[in-house]
Amino acid sequence: MGNNKKESLCKSLENYSYSDFYPFHMPGHKRAVEVPLLKEFPNPYRIDITEIEGFDNLHHAKGILKESMERAASVYGADKTYYLINGSSCGILSAICALTDNSDTILISRNCHKAAYHGVFLNQLQVKYIYPQIIDDFGVQGGLLPDEIEDMLKTFVDISAVFIVSPTYDGIVSNIRRISTICHNYKIPLIVDEAHGAHFSFGEKFPTSALNLGADIVIQSLHKTLPSFTQTALLHVKGNYVNIEKLEFYLQIFQSSSPSYLLMTGIERCVRFMESEGKIQMKQFENRLEILRQSLGNMRRLRLLDKSVIHKSGVFDLDISKIIVSTNHTHLNGEQLMCRLREDYHLEMEMCSIDYITAITSVMDTEEGLKRLENALISIDRELKEGYGLKSVPKNRMAVKEVMNLSEAWRSEKYSILFENSEGKISGEFIYIYPPGIPLLVPGEEITLEIINTVLDYKRKKLSVQGLKDSSVEWIQVIKK
Amino acid sequence: MGNNKKESLCKSLENYSYSDFYPFHMPGHKRAVEVPLLKEFPNPYRIDITEIEGFDNLHHAKGILKESMERAASVYGADKTYYLINGSSCGILSAICALTDNSDTILISRNCHKAAYHGVFLNQLQVKYIYPQIIDDFGVQGGLLPDEIEDMLKTFVDISAVFIVSPTYDGIVSNIRRISTICHNYKIPLIVDEAHGAHFSFGEKFPTSALNLGADIVIQSLHKTLPSFTQTALLHVKGNYVNIEKLEFYLQIFQSSSPSYLLMTGIERCVRFMESEGKIQMKQFENRLEILRQSLGNMRRLRLLDKSVIHKSGVFDLDISKIIVSTNHTHLNGEQLMCRLREDYHLEMEMCSIDYITAITSVMDTEEGLKRLENALISIDRELKEGYGLKSVPKNRMAVKEVMNLSEAWRSEKYSILFENSEGKISGEFIYIYPPGIPLLVPGEEITLEIINTVLDYKRKKLSVQGLKDSSVEWIQVIKK
Repeated sequence: MGNNKKESLCKSLENYSYSDFYPFHMPGHKRAVEVPLLKEFPNPYRIDITEIEGFDNLHHAKGILKESMERAASVYGADKTYYLINGSSCGILSAICALTDNSDTILISRNCHKAAYHGVFLNQLQVKYIYPQIIDDFGVQGGLLPDEIEDMLKTFVDISAVFIVSPTYDGIVSNIRRISTICHNYKIPLIVDEAHGAHFSFGEKFPTSALNLGADIVIQSLHKTLPSFTQTALLHVKGNYVNIEKLEFYLQIFQSSSPSYLLMTGIERCVRFMESEGKIQMKQFENRLEILRQSLGNMRRLRLLDKSVIHKSGVFDLDISKIIVSTNHTHLNGEQLMCRLREDYHLEMEMCSIDYITAITSVMDTEEGLKRLENALISIDRELKEGYGLKSVPKNRMAVKEVMNLSEAWRSEKYSILFENSEGKISGEFIYIYPPGIPLLVPGEEITLEIINTVLDYKRKKLSVQGLKDSSVEWIQVIKK
Repeated sequence: MGNNKKESLCKSLENYSYSDFYPFHMPGHKRAVEVPLLKEFPNPYRIDITEIEGFDNLHHAKGILKESMERAASVYGADKTYYLINGSSCGILSAICALTDNSDTILISRNCHKAAYHGVFLNQLQVKYIYPQIIDDFGVQGGLLPDEIEDMLKTFVDISAVFIVSPTYDGIVSNIRRISTICHNYKIPLIVDEAHGAHFSFGEKFPTSALNLGADIVIQSLHKTLPSFTQTALLHVKGNYVNIEKLEFYLQIFQSSSPSYLLMTGIERCVRFMESEGKIQMKQFENRLEILRQSLGNMRRLRLLDKSVIHKSGVFDLDISKIIVSTNHTHLNGEQLMCRLREDYHLEMEMCSIDYITAITSVMDTEEGLKRLENALISIDRELKEGYGLKSVPKNRMAVKEVMNLSEAWRSEKYSILFENSEGKISGEFIYIYPPGIPLLVPGEEITLEIINTVLDYKRKKLSVQGLKDSSVEWIQVIKK
């Protein structure tokens, strides 16, 4: 038997919430429990029911949940909106399975979320990839170029759907209008993983949502940038490319048959808030962001990723709520900056990469919170000496050769060999270099000498190499032939 | 834009919770918000975080979540326990995919949850079925016979896993010890869907959990019978039949990459409670159940499903917390009894079938609540006149012929034809008759004249025929060849 003395998860989380740590990470509600929207939420057990009389059924919505989802569709301008209680992940799986048949070919952006790779795996698809641009100076992923998508559609005539991510984790937005026009010229549906863009529809200074730019399915995580519970998301459908019956079939598979009313209530409250007071507060939020970004734009050594940087790199657009600060002209690396912000300022970032940090801000951020971030960064920046120059020039992409398709490779028997001796083998794993976090290698692709040398070189330079089970990057799992 | 005036989901749920309606349905916490376990739960946003420093990662647990899950494993006596935040559904999908390879053959009990059929579909399995017994007089599903399982394993040597449900929705328990022994004699792993049995381990008067009877994977919904949030569940592993790496791979696919700390906290609190005060309260609960069942056993017309009934039918065991009351010797049907309980007594049942009602009770039920159920049933029973005798003798099973496998059928193009003219076609849909709620027909099976006549006869008798998209049972979707 366990022992009851050890501090519970609940207590640890509560204690943390009473500390002065300020969250620049998800979820977007920022634990702002003094705000009425959050404060007035009832005891969660009180409203946690099952599908009884009068409270509808998410999987066959005809009553109160149907109305609630229709309301969300109207707020977002979708033809149909689904509440997701298993996160954007289940929306991505469902969208991919609904818009392809088993063993079809799909075009995906190589920088997509692992759920998209899972969708490819489950539906045993053939994959073609498009690669994002790279914002060299920052080592951050850029956008996807419409022309490259058109080239792929022209070359591979059996592609049946296109799946891309925009904005990226870092807030980089692609030209969805042009991409959707191209896809539709080829009569192919476009799925946009807009997990980080659920707030776009509520502000004037944010990019336009893909939903209003021709995308056929758009998936948004509510919890990432809006005041909603973690694990809540929306799937929007617009236009005539989507077989609704097939989509709903998969949504039923990938979501619990006992969906949480607590999570659904959280979704509805969030959407209702955003269409009313939230929308007004977004204006204040935009103003605060402008002040913050202006101030951070004046740092001497640390550098803010702003519109001038991305436009220089030919990137389409940027979500101003993502605060990306590069350390690559300083003697700090991303992790060191994140640690300083945590330890000296009690500010918790969303993540760090080798040479930048990412702070997620939302409409729930207080003026004081944003000021703390500003002051901390300005003050750290003042102490910094001239740095070591650019620390990393990660490669955008390398030549890869698919020997076996992803889904077959993932299903195959594997064994471990020394990575340095793996030339010519078929990889059973992903290899990512952060930044930019785009897989250099995907299961089923051949391990070339160039890839081995590049990865080992990166490792020597202490770049973050991820994806392998062996985190020391000595061993790799390869396919048993 | 929607309008903010319409009553919100949250408000509707709150209002309902303040009514005097008493829940004899899931979730097992019974909205008992005056009980410390529920009352002292913090504001949910306060503890709803993401995977930040110190709070681990469900999908690669190494810290506080790992310890929490290890504690649950030790409480339940599992080798390894996983928290599921997408319900038992995702546990069922993961277990099936982990214990089979694509296109393998699986033996499942025909009365299993639709998630098991989804697992078969996703992994493109061949299926063999075993059918539960029927408790004739009640029209309720019985248990699964070990000998029938052995016969199947003997006959079909390529079966690679067995998946069964025990207890059923109605609380009927099979002889898992014998079934697991048989499976292991054939070197085949056994998955038990024990969604309705998460409380078994905490009481003396309940059946033994499958986890202690040789099952290799056991999936339990915490919310169904214990004080935990809806959509929370556990997957337990015991023994050496399970490839943990493969299982974890699928758990990552079928669960959000942003798992809810709110749901996980609810799971931990539930398990901690059950290993301490909850266990003591289970004794009182058992005593209250005995009093309730004794009293209901004395009804004149309505009849309680009790151990004497099931033993007469050769059924192995029964969960005494499920209160099944048959109307089939009265002039009421199940729905009428359920409506009377709702309208005259403000008692909400879990469900009704054509001639019985199901009440779910749990350790969180108050003495007063159980008394209300007892008094209501006794008082309705007193008014009832001698009834019309047995209203339904549903068929246990009919000859079926699989023409196309389930997963192929579900993926095939379909069209609608009149059901009465569908002889010889391949069904694209399920047909269930309630009771007993076992599919008469599964996608891929041939529609025979016998099935058509039986279903139409049932329909005339106003039995509940479900599963078809056309709920009037005039049209059926069949496979386009």
